[in-house]
Amino acid sequence: MYKETNTRSIAKGISWRVIATTTTIVIVYFFFDRLDLAIAAGMIETLLKVGLYWLHERVWFKVRWGRERIEPFNLWFTGLPLSGKTTIANRVYEELLKLDIPLERLDSKEIRDVVPNIGFSREDRNRHMKRIGHLIKTLQNNAISTVASFVSPYTESRKTIRHMVKNTVVVYIKATPQSCQARDYKGVYAKALRGELPYFSGVNDPYEEPQHAEIIIDTDRLSVEEATEQIVTYIKRHYVN
Amino acid sequence: MYKETNTRSIAKGISWRVIATTTTIVIVYFFFDRLDLAIAAGMIETLLKVGLYWLHERVWFKVRWGRERIEPFNLWFTGLPLSGKTTIANRVYEELLKLDIPLERLDSKEIRDVVPNIGFSREDRNRHMKRIGHLIKTLQNNAISTVASFVSPYTESRKTIRHMVKNTVVVYIKATPQSCQARDYKGVYAKALRGELPYFSGVNDPYEEPQHAEIIIDTDRLSVEEATEQIVTYIKRHYVN
Repeated sequence: MYKETNTRSIAKGISWRVIATTTTIVIVYFFFDRLDLAIAAGMIETLLKVGLYWLHERVWFKVRWGRERIEPFNLWFTGLPLSGKTTIANRVYEELLKLDIPLERLDSKEIRDVVPNIGFSREDRNRHMKRIGHLIKTLQNNAISTVASFVSPYTESRKTIRHMVKNTVVVYIKATPQSCQARDYKGVYAKALRGELPYFSGVNDPYEEPQHAEIIIDTDRLSVEEATEQIVTYIKRHYVN
Repeated sequence: MYKETNTRSIAKGISWRVIATTTTIVIVYFFFDRLDLAIAAGMIETLLKVGLYWLHERVWFKVRWGRERIEPFNLWFTGLPLSGKTTIANRVYEELLKLDIPLERLDSKEIRDVVPNIGFSREDRNRHMKRIGHLIKTLQNNAISTVASFVSPYTESRKTIRHMVKNTVVVYIKATPQSCQARDYKGVYAKALRGELPYFSGVNDPYEEPQHAEIIIDTDRLSVEEATEQIVTYIKRHYVN
């Protein structure tokens, strides 16, 4: 939940030194002689100071000063169905986990599996976005950043997220309908084109291209690894230090 | 997000002593004399060791070993509308915050204000419970405990929560319909009794009393402070050490 600042670590160093050096001097004063005694003093010092150090640690553990709240961000992947959002978001999540920050992965499909019948109409989607916004906000209250992938086809839904949640970085995963269809291993595009799926973004429901995305990934030009690197670099530059 | 174990602190003490004592002995060996020199050595030791201590701290900060994940709990307040759930839950939340654990407060009304038109039918409520369950589960992934107050009138909804979320402690806020009506500052009971509010728990929709609540608070016998103390004591005994 917290990271420790340099200031805190330096202060810990100074306060510990006051205790430790005082002890050493008192001991050496009592022994008052040469190398063999200095070593003996070192041994006694060791016994004493390990205990003191432990106490010192536990006391510091109770002190909040010098701990800094981590500033959370929300990485928001938007794009046509099968544009590659989930694949890239998964890789980015893996890489960001290595930075040892509190992080949560949210994916449209997983949430729709847990809570069925959310619906795909404009009204349903907008209500869904409010709920996701509330979830991310609650996570941010607790300094947790998010990697979220949702088709989120409407400008207004993305605006809702930006409005409810701070530090949102919109990543637009740009892919032509042709290349999305080429990845159509589930056969959903074919179904939508036959008119069997209502409200299918990019086929019979609009996908409104984001106009203010912080990052645009052209999947026809970048590999998953290249895209991942670009996004992780952005996050490192702006939110992790 | 993490608390530090005693073992970790002891190990830090030992590893630091190995570095610090070696330094002291080498220095005293070079100076090789009495009190004045021991003090001088102490001064030099101080300068050197503050730097080393700092380095040592930053290195340990990167080490995950010996950090323990906090085990989250979910305190779930159920009861008739106006039974006093929110009031008691708010007080319990305030007290638990003092324990310095990651904690989130979830209240039915607040969530319904953010996402309107959730509905109150049995189907709506059960879907709502699934969403709340998902929210709490996501928080628990990040070691965050919850203080949640929801009418949650059906056995099946409470079962859903217990099933989705670990360490759920159900607190049944027991109040007679008469005492709830006496607290009816919003006039909602009166409205429900006139038939103007459909699905009002305890009036024209059932409230199924919990059979397996870990804590039962009889609001006709306990004050808010007494109830708070009983619940906080339970949490301290079972989940905080």
